[in-house]
Amino acid sequence: METTVYLGKVQSYAQGRWHAGEGEARTVYHAVTGEPVAEVSSAGLDFKGMLDYARTVGGPKLRKMTFHERARMLKAMAQYLMARKDEFYEASWATGATKKDAWIDVEGGIGTFFVYSSKGRRELPDEPFLLDGKPEILSRGGTFIGHHLLVPLEGVAVHINAFNFPCWGMLEKLAPTFLAGMPAIIKSATVTAYVTERMVRAMIESEILPEGALQLICGGVGDLFDHLTGQDVVTFTGSAETGRRLKAHPTILRESVRFNMEADSLNFSMLGPDVTPDMPEFDIFIKEVAGEMTIKTGQRCTAIRRTFVPADRVEAVVEALSKRLGGVTVGNPANEAVRMGPLVSRGQVAEVRERLAELAAAGEVVYGGLNNGFEVVDADPAKGAFFPPTLLYCPRPFEHTAPHDVEAFGPVNTIMPYGDLDEAIALAKRGKGSLVGSLVTADDRVARDVVLGTAAYHGRLLLLNRDCAKENTGHGSPLPHLVHGGPGRAGGGEEMGGIRGLHHYMQRTAIQGSPTTLTVVGGEWMPGAARPEADVHPFRKYFDELTVGETLTTARRTVTEADIVNFAGVSGDYFYAHMDDLAARESEIFEGRVAHGYFVLSAAAGLFVDPRQGPVLANYGLENLRFTKPVRPGDTIQAKLTVKKKTSKEPREGERPSGVVEWHVDVTNQDGELVATYDILTLVARRG
Amino acid sequence: METTVYLGKVQSYAQGRWHAGEGEARTVYHAVTGEPVAEVSSAGLDFKGMLDYARTVGGPKLRKMTFHERARMLKAMAQYLMARKDEFYEASWATGATKKDAWIDVEGGIGTFFVYSSKGRRELPDEPFLLDGKPEILSRGGTFIGHHLLVPLEGVAVHINAFNFPCWGMLEKLAPTFLAGMPAIIKSATVTAYVTERMVRAMIESEILPEGALQLICGGVGDLFDHLTGQDVVTFTGSAETGRRLKAHPTILRESVRFNMEADSLNFSMLGPDVTPDMPEFDIFIKEVAGEMTIKTGQRCTAIRRTFVPADRVEAVVEALSKRLGGVTVGNPANEAVRMGPLVSRGQVAEVRERLAELAAAGEVVYGGLNNGFEVVDADPAKGAFFPPTLLYCPRPFEHTAPHDVEAFGPVNTIMPYGDLDEAIALAKRGKGSLVGSLVTADDRVARDVVLGTAAYHGRLLLLNRDCAKENTGHGSPLPHLVHGGPGRAGGGEEMGGIRGLHHYMQRTAIQGSPTTLTVVGGEWMPGAARPEADVHPFRKYFDELTVGETLTTARRTVTEADIVNFAGVSGDYFYAHMDDLAARESEIFEGRVAHGYFVLSAAAGLFVDPRQGPVLANYGLENLRFTKPVRPGDTIQAKLTVKKKTSKEPREGERPSGVVEWHVDVTNQDGELVATYDILTLVARRG
Repeated sequence: METTVYLGKVQSYAQGRWHAGEGEARTVYHAVTGEPVAEVSSAGLDFKGMLDYARTVGGPKLRKMTFHERARMLKAMAQYLMARKDEFYEASWATGATKKDAWIDVEGGIGTFFVYSSKGRRELPDEPFLLDGKPEILSRGGTFIGHHLLVPLEGVAVHINAFNFPCWGMLEKLAPTFLAGMPAIIKSATVTAYVTERMVRAMIESEILPEGALQLICGGVGDLFDHLTGQDVVTFTGSAETGRRLKAHPTILRESVRFNMEADSLNFSMLGPDVTPDMPEFDIFIKEVAGEMTIKTGQRCTAIRRTFVPADRVEAVVEALSKRLGGVTVGNPANEAVRMGPLVSRGQVAEVRERLAELAAAGEVVYGGLNNGFEVVDADPAKGAFFPPTLLYCPRPFEHTAPHDVEAFGPVNTIMPYGDLDEAIALAKRGKGSLVGSLVTADDRVARDVVLGTAAYHGRLLLLNRDCAKENTGHGSPLPHLVHGGPGRAGGGEEMGGIRGLHHYMQRTAIQGSPTTLTVVGGEWMPGAARPEADVHPFRKYFDELTVGETLTTARRTVTEADIVNFAGVSGDYFYAHMDDLAARESEIFEGRVAHGYFVLSAAAGLFVDPRQGPVLANYGLENLRFTKPVRPGDTIQAKLTVKKKTSKEPREGERPSGVVEWHVDVTNQDGELVATYDILTLVARRG
Repeated sequence: METTVYLGKVQSYAQGRWHAGEGEARTVYHAVTGEPVAEVSSAGLDFKGMLDYARTVGGPKLRKMTFHERARMLKAMAQYLMARKDEFYEASWATGATKKDAWIDVEGGIGTFFVYSSKGRRELPDEPFLLDGKPEILSRGGTFIGHHLLVPLEGVAVHINAFNFPCWGMLEKLAPTFLAGMPAIIKSATVTAYVTERMVRAMIESEILPEGALQLICGGVGDLFDHLTGQDVVTFTGSAETGRRLKAHPTILRESVRFNMEADSLNFSMLGPDVTPDMPEFDIFIKEVAGEMTIKTGQRCTAIRRTFVPADRVEAVVEALSKRLGGVTVGNPANEAVRMGPLVSRGQVAEVRERLAELAAAGEVVYGGLNNGFEVVDADPAKGAFFPPTLLYCPRPFEHTAPHDVEAFGPVNTIMPYGDLDEAIALAKRGKGSLVGSLVTADDRVARDVVLGTAAYHGRLLLLNRDCAKENTGHGSPLPHLVHGGPGRAGGGEEMGGIRGLHHYMQRTAIQGSPTTLTVVGGEWMPGAARPEADVHPFRKYFDELTVGETLTTARRTVTEADIVNFAGVSGDYFYAHMDDLAARESEIFEGRVAHGYFVLSAAAGLFVDPRQGPVLANYGLENLRFTKPVRPGDTIQAKLTVKKKTSKEPREGERPSGVVEWHVDVTNQDGELVATYDILTLVARRG
């Protein structure tokens, strides 16, 4: 790496074109060298025009795509960005990021696209919208039912990002936005805008996204907020103060614009009362706390700020942590020996210094601190934004508010003692709402008590012990599978969490009507809807030829005592209800011998299977089976097999093109009473 | 009924006592007679004390209860209130409600308690908290996984209700609040506070709720908002203007207090392009529109305000609607001939009159209107708050904004013509977000187009035709099973929707750790968690004796060609993959003969079943079955049966006490490869 990179004027991408901001720009400086790296200005952008462009050009294109198409787009983009990742690492250096910090930002960010792509294909239908939950039967006769749909909002998602993760912060929001079917406008943080711009440039050059799906603002947002509507979404990651100001914008309030906020919080780590210094959990704790203090130089909304330790283990913890922090080399991340880079700017150094003073008033600095001097490797400490790992100790944490209220957004953490677990839980809640808390314990009952005691105040809780420490992804790392966000001070928002993350960009709408109408609307057969008899056996039809609702009514079969005996012989299942006439008659539940449930299932298959080779490739699963009434010797059963749902499937290399067909099966007896109901999952070939 | 009911000073219920407000009170008047009915003041209440009381007295008690206990509490309350319903009907008369209007409010409201009680017992565990979604495997080795919990918030739910439904408006919010485990403070609308007070008084007298679970404010909320925290929730139903003001309260913003808002909106009804006056759907449409205009004298946030009709059918619709509205007798609801009562107050008459003038400027009054005079039965029109059903016609709805923006909160509706379906959909969206829209059509493809075209702007869509009209619950009626709320103008909130409605009162928290830890925390066996071998066969154990994770590893069984043949004979399933050696070998999927999937399932049951009579009463269902690998002649299979989840069950009269036990089953082959995995559902007796 060179020692100076001057990137020049950062550009915005608006209405299909790159714009350098007009007029005076803000200069941002290299975190390591203090030299200018970029100029940022959004002056001259047509913000209303950008919103309209997203709504009229990008939105309609995305909404026409199915979830699977959008998911494939995410995967293609992730692969494209991975191939160009070196560029993003290179740009990250000026922010003060070490290789590991940049890995979280760049590859961690791209990883959210991979996860959402995979979830989209596995968990969502190949449709542009989604059925949510199960149908609700709203009437006695069953002619009037309800269901819920999720459809993409018709506006634009405006994502306002924090400076610390110029790539991940954008990508973790874009993945669910695009998968949901909404276009986005990114507002990058000014101080690291040059990294975000680099990645957006790559995304645009890839030509993988539909036109209008993505725009970028580097610099201020001008009058953009004045033109928002109830179909738009704003997400915000950053300081609580700025977040609150934006949330109170008159247009946000007037139009009920969705506002999803993620604010920095005073996250805790806790050493369980059961953990003594000789246990592996003690080392796990020290490693986790030291690591999470120093990754990204502590500039993470999820970083550990408060550490709760049993009172009699404070000394051991301070000693072990100090030793470990002593091994953290601070300096120029271009030097491979360096473990922790500078803060993002000298402004941040001043800010953290002020907060540290407030914290120190509630206790004492036991490691680091600006007044104690520290070594900086391979850089000029007078020019770069360096700050040492700093540990405080607050001996009376119930008497002071500062450790629970004041956030030093750097490598700063306060250790506090607790007596019993109730005290530790009470301390955790003093943070008034956090993104994450972590506990290291070898006692799962302690884990349960801490989780149930603190969950209402936290968006995520990490529970570490020797069994999972090795594969653990870390206190500070939100994962796309899990929700990220927290109540109260943490902003009250929620992001990601797998498919849940799409809901922020979609409208949930209840639909009510006849089952047949709702079947046509939702594309899935609903209970009570028409079941027209198929012209040919539906197992002889290809995926493309089957229609939802199409039904086969089978021949009948009389179940006899011989069937039960034979089935017991083949299966080995001699349960008394099937085989012991005396016990079965005594039983209040069975009141006599009954056929095996699995016999009913197997006999139904015997009735509806078409034995010849055909388009049905496999029956690979079954769901929602309920045995609703016993089948007794002498009963005559019959099955109805209905196409419930079709989901096309992307063929893998060399695989036969096919789709998943879910069939609803009802088995009835001679009186028309339901004896079993279930859904079977089959793979059915496409024609040709 | 008497002609005058003077109810005196309405009281608030705070910190366990009834309080008459101090100082000057607001007088509210009888909607029919114009005479004073009540005085309302909350002066002198300790609002901060009320919040603390709910948080420290009510909250902890509710949180200790399980969902099933809370659900039984709701049912007991619903039964209690039903037994006293006459009191609430009596009090409702002064609000101007007809018997039918009061039925919606009183029995409709109580119905939400019944529905939530039933859903709570059927759909939720017998625990104080809830697992949400499925476990997420976060690591290759499976030693680190994630899941989500929902726990009740530890604050208080403040419910600010609208005047139109003094009972339902309270109960539809309380049902999910209490089931979630949160205490509530109700702020009644002043003008109908005497009805809410009557019902709250009954609820307190019932002694069914834990102390501190419910408090009531009749009158202003004083400084209550200043003392809210991030653990509290505010819900608001009413005018958008008041809602916006409350939402912008500095404490709401600073503490990220959840704010769920339901505002009046300009809901549409649409006559499908396919419907001609000779079709039953035409009459359904006329009946629905006229009914929804006049129920509760049009004072519903869900009432129809905009009616879209194919241009060439406007005349027929106006004629039919006018005829039907002509049959609506207006007057004193105490008179049985009366179909529509007064508005709630003369203030509302003035308000609606003003709005009507704005609407009339965009078209013409084609039926009713205040200037045309109207008959009032059994009451003095000069004293009561009467207003006639009024129909407007706006011939150029794309040129005027008033019909889409101005809400006359009374029996007022504007008819607008449309050309094609795209135009009708565009008109629907002009409402900028509504609670509900309805469509009458006999063509399900029209229904699909309208739903997918308008869903992003609506919280609920009702689709009517001849098949469901009879059982239809009406355009204006939110149901506890379905979400109620809408985007944009409708406030952007969401209520009810079955169990979804609990989420507003709970924190979703991601938990991460080893599968065994998460099993202990969540009380449900997670994939990868410890499976300790049971000391005795678990089917010999009673519900109380089984522990989550306890496992039976069965003997093994070699599957042979004879098994396949015998199973085919018993089941009748001669599918080629099992019986046609040539075709099976040719098949790319099977590559040779395989055993029936249902044989594997049946043989596994044969391996783990204990044939003697015992505590396992029945195997009533199966979920999540996947056949993961074929079983071939010569393969040797073995099963592992693990207690996954236990849910205790409330015994019905004369039933044996029991609980539901879900067992996770893995079937493996001689190489330890998984061939099938599923969960079975059994009913297991309790000891004694």
